[in-house]
Amino acid sequence: MAPLRTALLQGPRGVPDGADEALAALDDAAARAAARGAALLATGELFLSGYALGDRMAHAAEPADGPAARTVAAIAARHGVAVVYGCPERDGARVHNTARLVGPDGRTLAAYRKTHLFGAYERAVFTAGEHPVVQADLGGVRVGLLICYDVEFPEAVRAHALAGTELLVVPTALMRPYEFVAHTLVPARAYENGLYIAYVNRCGPEGEFDFAGLSCLAGPDGAVRARAGAGPELLVADVDLEVLRGARAETPYLADRRPELYRSLGPSG
Amino acid sequence: MAPLRTALLQGPRGVPDGADEALAALDDAAARAAARGAALLATGELFLSGYALGDRMAHAAEPADGPAARTVAAIAARHGVAVVYGCPERDGARVHNTARLVGPDGRTLAAYRKTHLFGAYERAVFTAGEHPVVQADLGGVRVGLLICYDVEFPEAVRAHALAGTELLVVPTALMRPYEFVAHTLVPARAYENGLYIAYVNRCGPEGEFDFAGLSCLAGPDGAVRARAGAGPELLVADVDLEVLRGARAETPYLADRRPELYRSLGPSG
Repeated sequence: MAPLRTALLQGPRGVPDGADEALAALDDAAARAAARGAALLATGELFLSGYALGDRMAHAAEPADGPAARTVAAIAARHGVAVVYGCPERDGARVHNTARLVGPDGRTLAAYRKTHLFGAYERAVFTAGEHPVVQADLGGVRVGLLICYDVEFPEAVRAHALAGTELLVVPTALMRPYEFVAHTLVPARAYENGLYIAYVNRCGPEGEFDFAGLSCLAGPDGAVRARAGAGPELLVADVDLEVLRGARAETPYLADRRPELYRSLGPSG
Repeated sequence: MAPLRTALLQGPRGVPDGADEALAALDDAAARAAARGAALLATGELFLSGYALGDRMAHAAEPADGPAARTVAAIAARHGVAVVYGCPERDGARVHNTARLVGPDGRTLAAYRKTHLFGAYERAVFTAGEHPVVQADLGGVRVGLLICYDVEFPEAVRAHALAGTELLVVPTALMRPYEFVAHTLVPARAYENGLYIAYVNRCGPEGEFDFAGLSCLAGPDGAVRARAGAGPELLVADVDLEVLRGARAETPYLADRRPELYRSLGPSG
């Protein structure tokens, strides 16, 4: 099977001047990703709205079938590229921090609501999701979704690996001084679970935050396939299931687990 | 509270010519560790016997109160230094891959039997342990024990963090080409759990194996406090609970876990 060529859009900087500006950037990136042969384009966390919106986040949030979602679907279909994007999602009175996977025909394949909210700001603005593993098949690859802080919990990624995720796409808003997460923790997560992680960060200052960039595609063998710097960038690299199978055979962590010894990690722990 | 100064003995190279040779090296290292102010000295996996013994491992194994254990107790008491050491342990017909913590008065404080055996060789030689979390207090620090492959499972280290481990001592026999584990995975484990890891490896060739060295003391903030090269070395660095508390306040992973979402990791998963 041919590798799944994956594009990671780091940027643009800052809070967009409304969703239209973000959507224009997405359309441009999708054209460039398609020109480079990518079948999937992924963005950072809250790509459509920006991160540091505060009280305005609720206003920016749209329902799952809102106008911005329809425009993303049209962008995906126009360029024939699947898209994972981050956005604030309205569901009744609640606002979720959501990542959505749209297929190359514009259909929504999966939607995930961040389950591990980070810090007082996110807890004030968002309601946490309750479904830890959300997946869909894309070009023969089992794609899973997490968002930023989620991936820092080994339990969250392990649950994906056990459920068959092969490429974990993680829209992110990683701030300084937490660069360790991008440099070290994300490659370790990929290695210990034998899967790919597309970790797509925001970049540059935004309100009180300063996003670290350093987006990467980390491989199941521990090797980082592509790594961004501090500024806007479009990374393109391949997700290859042959490599994944080789890594899992070399270090059979999933087969060598001893679940009967892990009782303390769950709800009865 | 004063930091717990910890010494990591990487080496000597190769299979020792009997336990007496290993014990002489331990005695020498304990003197040097004490002279540098260390309160704890830790060795690599199967320090007393060597790793690549094959069929001779069963012969080298001693019961928990065997003569080698008594000599280690005398070494600890003579230098006033606690010791974590790796050895093959006989228990009836079974042989375990064991790490034992001896206090500075020579009393055994904790004994752990490796729960995740690595590869066909270890499974042929050893019986896996059934107790995932073994701990003891040492100088006001909660010390836990794991061995080599164990630490590569995020579940095993998380169980320690949830049980209060502050310094995880990990006698190791990490082979090339798995240097990623020492460089990246061990610092990530320390960071994601907010604890120290003393990762003490063997070094140099031994039978079909080539041990990678690269022992380290990884901190709860992601910073590596000391790192060995490829050859024999005695590392000394401090375990500071103030640093640990600061790291856990900065990234409150243990408090932010959502155990109700981690059901799939346990025995009913």
